[in-house]
Amino acid sequence: MTNGAVALLETLRNAGVDTCFMNPGTSEMHFVSALDGSDMRAVLALFEGVATGAADGYARIAQKPAATLLHLGCGLGNGLANLHNARKARVPLVNIVGDHATYHTQYDAQLQSDIETVARNVSTWVRTTARSEDLARDALEAVSVAIGPPAQVTTLILPADVSWTEGARALEPKARPEPACADDARIDRIARTLGSGDKTAILLGRRVLLERGLVAASKIAERTGAKLFCEVFPTRLERGAGLPNVERLAYFAELASVQLAGFRHLVLIDAKAPVSFFGYPGKKSYLVPEGCELHDLVRVDEDAVGSIERLVRAVGAERIRPRLQPPSRPQLPTGKLTGPKVCQALGALLPSDAIISDEAQTSGVKLGAFTQGCPRHDLLALTGGAIGQALPVAVGAAIAAPERPVVALVGDGSAMYTLQALWSIVREGLDVTTIIMNNRAYSILNIELSRVGAEEPGPKAKAQLDLASPPLDFVKLAQGMGMRATRATTAEEFTLALRDAFTAPGPRLIDAIIPSEFDGLKLRALPTGLDMLQRLPSPLAKGIKKKLGL
Amino acid sequence: MTNGAVALLETLRNAGVDTCFMNPGTSEMHFVSALDGSDMRAVLALFEGVATGAADGYARIAQKPAATLLHLGCGLGNGLANLHNARKARVPLVNIVGDHATYHTQYDAQLQSDIETVARNVSTWVRTTARSEDLARDALEAVSVAIGPPAQVTTLILPADVSWTEGARALEPKARPEPACADDARIDRIARTLGSGDKTAILLGRRVLLERGLVAASKIAERTGAKLFCEVFPTRLERGAGLPNVERLAYFAELASVQLAGFRHLVLIDAKAPVSFFGYPGKKSYLVPEGCELHDLVRVDEDAVGSIERLVRAVGAERIRPRLQPPSRPQLPTGKLTGPKVCQALGALLPSDAIISDEAQTSGVKLGAFTQGCPRHDLLALTGGAIGQALPVAVGAAIAAPERPVVALVGDGSAMYTLQALWSIVREGLDVTTIIMNNRAYSILNIELSRVGAEEPGPKAKAQLDLASPPLDFVKLAQGMGMRATRATTAEEFTLALRDAFTAPGPRLIDAIIPSEFDGLKLRALPTGLDMLQRLPSPLAKGIKKKLGL
Repeated sequence: MTNGAVALLETLRNAGVDTCFMNPGTSEMHFVSALDGSDMRAVLALFEGVATGAADGYARIAQKPAATLLHLGCGLGNGLANLHNARKARVPLVNIVGDHATYHTQYDAQLQSDIETVARNVSTWVRTTARSEDLARDALEAVSVAIGPPAQVTTLILPADVSWTEGARALEPKARPEPACADDARIDRIARTLGSGDKTAILLGRRVLLERGLVAASKIAERTGAKLFCEVFPTRLERGAGLPNVERLAYFAELASVQLAGFRHLVLIDAKAPVSFFGYPGKKSYLVPEGCELHDLVRVDEDAVGSIERLVRAVGAERIRPRLQPPSRPQLPTGKLTGPKVCQALGALLPSDAIISDEAQTSGVKLGAFTQGCPRHDLLALTGGAIGQALPVAVGAAIAAPERPVVALVGDGSAMYTLQALWSIVREGLDVTTIIMNNRAYSILNIELSRVGAEEPGPKAKAQLDLASPPLDFVKLAQGMGMRATRATTAEEFTLALRDAFTAPGPRLIDAIIPSEFDGLKLRALPTGLDMLQRLPSPLAKGIKKKLGL
Repeated sequence: MTNGAVALLETLRNAGVDTCFMNPGTSEMHFVSALDGSDMRAVLALFEGVATGAADGYARIAQKPAATLLHLGCGLGNGLANLHNARKARVPLVNIVGDHATYHTQYDAQLQSDIETVARNVSTWVRTTARSEDLARDALEAVSVAIGPPAQVTTLILPADVSWTEGARALEPKARPEPACADDARIDRIARTLGSGDKTAILLGRRVLLERGLVAASKIAERTGAKLFCEVFPTRLERGAGLPNVERLAYFAELASVQLAGFRHLVLIDAKAPVSFFGYPGKKSYLVPEGCELHDLVRVDEDAVGSIERLVRAVGAERIRPRLQPPSRPQLPTGKLTGPKVCQALGALLPSDAIISDEAQTSGVKLGAFTQGCPRHDLLALTGGAIGQALPVAVGAAIAAPERPVVALVGDGSAMYTLQALWSIVREGLDVTTIIMNNRAYSILNIELSRVGAEEPGPKAKAQLDLASPPLDFVKLAQGMGMRATRATTAEEFTLALRDAFTAPGPRLIDAIIPSEFDGLKLRALPTGLDMLQRLPSPLAKGIKKKLGL
């Protein structure tokens, strides 16, 4: 028998949770104190949003949950945005949220708040453990539910006295049943659709974006002529030379509509029917073309990869060779630095087996095109739209895969949300190269302002999207947290810094000073977004133009 | 008739809300677009926790609500910790949280989450306005409920289409009835208690900590012999030369128990019965001594200042002179810089009419003693225990009172929570002097680790409280956001920098490198905390020692 905290840590380790991202306070001190008796890796963050985003990044790469340790309702609140992103990413993640001692809550002390109500925003499984002897059982359930399928965020609320009271005992997890695949009738029906000759697209999401799923999807496409798409914001997309290359749906609904135009069937494989990110006056939210029939291959609680592999057999594609991306690299860019040139340089120099945590918004629009022939790598996208994800996710990814180089590509506005992640990168000595796309604006909002049909913006409106005054100096900000950092204003400077970063692994930041890509662009006048095509990744633009006969 | 956003802005202005702290996204673009037609002051923050904390600081000084503009559930989540502090401060604050268009929510797009469930953590008044024509009415109600009494945080959720749809019309607020005072029976009963000769203390809180309330309390104390205390974390305490000086209850329950020992009656005036901040093994949570009778003068929905002034009359103290703090300044400190020396220098140099936003935790323990004879100033404390408040509150306070010098005194750990506030200080050109108490540790947690009775902490546990590796360079961090900054390691350097900051108003940061005050202190072995007395502000320590006959 031990106290609750010791039993909790041992149970989490038994269940395979080996890393805890934390920012603890007084109510978590027994958990902290018990760390020395456990081989749980404890990673301190200076802000809870870093801890929760890191746990998300860890899960995307390790394919298993990490834990977070958060301080009451306010700590959970600070971590909520990146937990939202994790929820939308459908990754497994176990929050341990410390609470006041059970007998102390009646006094409504300063930090008292309703933790469960906050947790419900991101967790369907929320439990406050009231007795030390129940803690191991509840912890096992929290991990088991988090793993799923469907993978999800669970939240275990841990009163301080439950942590410090003796009488607890660690438990071992039970064996888990394998999830079922889609049933034969569903698979056969979709196979018949794919074989019908109707114009059909397949939208791949979440769990089928790693090699096995992609290879299966490519075989099906090669066999049936279906067009493959990948969801806009993949949790984790394996890509590069030697893997099937899949076209991502565009963020802008105007463009995604063009990509999806003319299809008679849309087969969803662990993806949702495409909708626009926001609703806009006079524009459609639901992007599936009229008359296009939807087919859902797999439920979230089923085995997605197993199901797509059954579909391969059902369409007779076992022996079909998938279409694999040949290796290719862009030239190194020259001249004044721009967002696309940052992507180009990255494409020219990306090391093999890299992980890219991407939250570059407008400036990163050419990332996909410039890196598609790079050595095999992972792309981790902003899954829930809550900015401030990329740096924390890079922390977690680097801890999950210490041998792999990690690149965080992040806009200036996004970076400022959770910049404290740089400190954890330095503290843990992680091989993360942070590239700040510093265009000194919430550039995406300049576009959005016109997309929503807002009137010609005046100076006060524009000022709310402007980060130029004062300008942010990310070199100094990084150095303030002990990180080596360089500024680049030309492609040559950027290339030099990037090469240096990849040659000497470790924490490194490059402040890439670039213009705003979409200055002056008026989507309002462009209901189909055609003028934007020139600014898009060229394969995508070409494809769309071709489709439109331009 | 206008669109919803225009009517909302005009209605807020009609209701006296003149400042909006914001970090908007796409769903708020019509509100942003409407700013140019309004004289609402818009203050951009790089993170929502800055916006919400600034609205809190604004309300503490302006004594009226500001609005925030936040981006869906995740934006609200990012702002939640400082909204919690605002809730506990009982300040008026109106959140406007943008949401997806009403017809868009069905699609569960990336940023979709349950906003209301998050809002309920801090707001009893939460409303989603479904039609543009209801927006002005709902906005008036949000402001009215926020003002109270009791003052509180309200949250108006604003779907994008309600914002952009025409058909709305601004409204004017109705006249508000004056809140009632405590009834005569209650006042007379408490007056009799105060006149009974029993040992009686008065605990002052929230609304009676400004001059009128303090003068009334002092008259009562002088007339009846009652001892005056102020709650541990005042929302706003007016203090300094010429005002009554009130002893604050100590954060450490061990010490607060000593302060409260022996009282037969405790009269609460807009304050709660004192409880310890956290529950600790084997220690009391409820700090009112056994046998001490509680008397509540005023309900939260009543007029607190009016009620205490009636109590003055009831005890016959109208003509009694309050005991006013005489002017005094400490000497300038010399030698190696420490937390107490920072407080001493501040006491020596504090300009008149200053506002101190205090979140210095352990390092600021002598602030009260060293500044009590300074020219009159306001002290704003960490009301809800959620760290990361002081810098945002300083932003809001400086905007509410541009003519007053603001000092933010903040620990390194706390500062890193919402450091983005520095950018808003520079952007708005605010006269805020930020002093970082940089002891390179979560110093308070070193004490708490022993207070909770956790076993002798090992290296892993200690590492979670340690901010030394890598050390944080706040000079570089501030410069990265365009702020003038200086490091000080000696009292002389600190004095020079502080004098300079007070001589040339404007944004300024001093990185005060100090040792951790409580290193090695073991409260666990000190149930009454007696050994801590030596480290306490001397008047408090003296008083306690006297009480205990030491």
